Amino acid sequence: MNREIPDEILKEKNYEVYTTDNFGTPLIQKVAPKLRATTGEEKVVDSLEDVVLKTVEDGMTVSFHHHFREGDYVFNKVMRIIIDHGFKNLTLAPSSLTNVMNDIVVEAIEKGVVTNITSSGMRGSLGDAVSHGALKNPVIFRSHGNRARAIETGAIKIDVAFLGVPNSDAMGNANGMDGATAFGSLGYALMDAQYAQTVVLVTDNIKPYPNTPASIKQTQVDYVVKVDAVGNPDKIGSGATRFTKDPKELKIAKTVNEVITHSEYFKDGFSFQTGSGGAALAVTRFLRQSMIDNQIKASFALGGITKPTIDLLEEGLVDKVMDVQDFDKGAAESMHQNKSQQEIDASWYADPANKGAMVDALDVVILSALEIDTKFNVNVMSGSDGVIRGAIGGHQDAATAKLTIISAPLVRGRIATIVPDVTTAVTPGDSIDVLVTEVGIAINPKRKDLLESLSKVPGVPVYTIEELQQMAQEKVGTPKPLEFNDRVVALIEYRDGSLIDVIKEVKD
Amino acid sequence: MNREIPDEILKEKNYEVYTTDNFGTPLIQKVAPKLRATTGEEKVVDSLEDVVLKTVEDGMTVSFHHHFREGDYVFNKVMRIIIDHGFKNLTLAPSSLTNVMNDIVVEAIEKGVVTNITSSGMRGSLGDAVSHGALKNPVIFRSHGNRARAIETGAIKIDVAFLGVPNSDAMGNANGMDGATAFGSLGYALMDAQYAQTVVLVTDNIKPYPNTPASIKQTQVDYVVKVDAVGNPDKIGSGATRFTKDPKELKIAKTVNEVITHSEYFKDGFSFQTGSGGAALAVTRFLRQSMIDNQIKASFALGGITKPTIDLLEEGLVDKVMDVQDFDKGAAESMHQNKSQQEIDASWYADPANKGAMVDALDVVILSALEIDTKFNVNVMSGSDGVIRGAIGGHQDAATAKLTIISAPLVRGRIATIVPDVTTAVTPGDSIDVLVTEVGIAINPKRKDLLESLSKVPGVPVYTIEELQQMAQEKVGTPKPLEFNDRVVALIEYRDGSLIDVIKEVKD
Repeated sequence: MNREIPDEILKEKNYEVYTTDNFGTPLIQKVAPKLRATTGEEKVVDSLEDVVLKTVEDGMTVSFHHHFREGDYVFNKVMRIIIDHGFKNLTLAPSSLTNVMNDIVVEAIEKGVVTNITSSGMRGSLGDAVSHGALKNPVIFRSHGNRARAIETGAIKIDVAFLGVPNSDAMGNANGMDGATAFGSLGYALMDAQYAQTVVLVTDNIKPYPNTPASIKQTQVDYVVKVDAVGNPDKIGSGATRFTKDPKELKIAKTVNEVITHSEYFKDGFSFQTGSGGAALAVTRFLRQSMIDNQIKASFALGGITKPTIDLLEEGLVDKVMDVQDFDKGAAESMHQNKSQQEIDASWYADPANKGAMVDALDVVILSALEIDTKFNVNVMSGSDGVIRGAIGGHQDAATAKLTIISAPLVRGRIATIVPDVTTAVTPGDSIDVLVTEVGIAINPKRKDLLESLSKVPGVPVYTIEELQQMAQEKVGTPKPLEFNDRVVALIEYRDGSLIDVIKEVKD
Repeated sequence: MNREIPDEILKEKNYEVYTTDNFGTPLIQKVAPKLRATTGEEKVVDSLEDVVLKTVEDGMTVSFHHHFREGDYVFNKVMRIIIDHGFKNLTLAPSSLTNVMNDIVVEAIEKGVVTNITSSGMRGSLGDAVSHGALKNPVIFRSHGNRARAIETGAIKIDVAFLGVPNSDAMGNANGMDGATAFGSLGYALMDAQYAQTVVLVTDNIKPYPNTPASIKQTQVDYVVKVDAVGNPDKIGSGATRFTKDPKELKIAKTVNEVITHSEYFKDGFSFQTGSGGAALAVTRFLRQSMIDNQIKASFALGGITKPTIDLLEEGLVDKVMDVQDFDKGAAESMHQNKSQQEIDASWYADPANKGAMVDALDVVILSALEIDTKFNVNVMSGSDGVIRGAIGGHQDAATAKLTIISAPLVRGRIATIVPDVTTAVTPGDSIDVLVTEVGIAINPKRKDLLESLSKVPGVPVYTIEELQQMAQEKVGTPKPLEFNDRVVALIEYRDGSLIDVIKEVKD
């Protein structure tokens, strides 16, 4: 990949450098937790503080999930107690960090409470602080599939998982699909429930025993803490699913659909992951019409799920929705009533180190990019100013699909999206097949088959990615090269656990 | 318990002797398999023989489940190949052995193919052969909960699990509830799927990918073998659920119901496990009427499930059915359409070494006995001739309920059921609360509360167990003491992994 990775990082952390997106078929020794057996002891506790004091010790790894997204109350409640009691040297290992968690993590870092973080991503004040060297040790960024791999193989060993749930019975049988703060799939949290030494459920809704369906099971849970509220229902998912009206986004979405429908993968039984956001929803809408017009049905839709994808399921255009998280209320609410909306954990979704994940069978995926370079390497982690403001999510994982499409505008404001070299390499160009912009598409030269099949699509001009990069540069000029200090503030793992890039401290 | 257990067995196998039915709250280090990662490789194979040859080696532990019961074809197909290829020194670790498996296991033992067995039980020609010393090493009998414990802690390390399923997709997503040979819950097999190094699904019904609901997941499966038929639908479960007409059984069932309804546990939200067989079904019917008459509803019914229990669920008399296996077609067929019939694995059902099993919350259980002695110890494993002809099943596990009732006639034919000392101790008297016979009941003296609450139930005379034993003896006389050789042919573990008894070779 030709990224600058300091040797001392590789040695100190015992990392291999990324070489291939083909995981192969290695032997994998999985790990398992050490647990305290119980036989009917009371698990319900009123005081979250008591449970934190009973379970957390200096130096431990504590985890959370981000299924409540910007409506999360649990993370702040727990971290407040942890900070106020002066714990030190904790490792935070959440599935991801949403904006509502930023300020308290910055405070925890400043006070020496948190000295290590592994996450899918971070943004805002936290990304800024870390980029300026606030955290003692480099953050490790991992994709959702890689987090599952790391947990299953012991690279992440969670001592205590604090998992907010919209319902639980007194023994810890819980799901994400019922209750005022329902968020649908518990996909990421299921890893923590299975592998953490100690599992603390936090809920505002204790249900009669036994509570079913039980996505998290009593066999995994040590404590059930009753609190007033676990989240703000209005902020858990975007409420209405807004269809973009931006002409550039619409043009890109339409072109993405042209690429899909003119590829060999668009046939009965195909599968896809479209993701969230206004542009992704537009793709889903165009794709829906093409499926109807061509009498083509999909076998499954994968990934973070939105209401428009559920609509396809209900219309019979998609047989199964394989659901690791839900991005909006419509998707979350449908889960408990639609048998074909299958909850999957992060391992089943995307872990390369098990006996086969859903992403292995994925035909078409549409992904975004903060930057993409002329080697097709994609950055979804840092801004053009070098500051951390993104998340890997399932980007590296889903990019292993047969047809991986990056949808991105040539420029955003005065900043080029297509660049000679990405600021941070997150997903390798090896995995990317087509870049779709508002002016046309570029095809990875490795994919000669696509160069052929997509060369004569009406209204879809094909360029080399260097040409698109030049067009972007002509629009916004050549930016002054970024300057960084030598200190490494974050490590970007590839999904196999190798190191694909590092992020250095920004120079002010 | 005062059972004769040879010291060399304790030393050689590093066993503790059973001391208490209270498991306590020890720290438990769970284990995890080493697996071969795959990313989309083809798993479907036509030749079962090829897969056996690729996966099995001399000395390995191979496992099966018994959910197909007497309709199972998979066990015989796999064992035929194993025997014909001359494998040696295998350990058989099925969830249990049904009669249809007996003859081929005897053959495998005689040919040195199988030298160790761990099972819930065995009967017929196999029990006879083992009792006469055919197997090289002692069989280890474990309850369903103890098997889960042993698998989760590494005492049973399964190299290859051959799991028959009524449906699977090409990647190994499978369930037990759909298809011509549906048997309902995959409860016992879920342990094998999660913990075996290599998992081979055997099916006659390949479904489109992705197959849901997936009780067994593709992340766990190495091979999917397509065969002509996995089982005989007519023999998987007893077809019609027959209500006993035997006056003695009816009398016992009625008395069991009197004991339940006059106990403190019979109140709204109570829970129960009734089991299978004509007498158990009669209990369920009497209990149903009492629930209606007293306007009492149960929170859950547990265990092996029958259609009459599903009827209670559908009538609203039971909120949830927690289902580790289904004994008949009615129960099996209802699973995929009734959300309140929750599939549970053997660990969730009954493992004492996790963070809480369903049996911990069980109020009332009705269990059977081949023999029960004046210390309330129960034998469900060997006949009065000393020959193995039974299974622990969930007996030890469910006996930890708050009210454990043994229902048994005083005598069967010319053989006493109530004896001074059981031939084989399986479930300790510590766990047993009430014995119900056709002439009256006996209450464990430890349960002074029950002596009080059940002393004045109309039509239910209370005796000491010694009195009942005397009545049985008066009916059939005193049998000649059994004679055994010194050699130990089977070990009876308690559910915590301690040794509760041994079975010695019968003397002819």
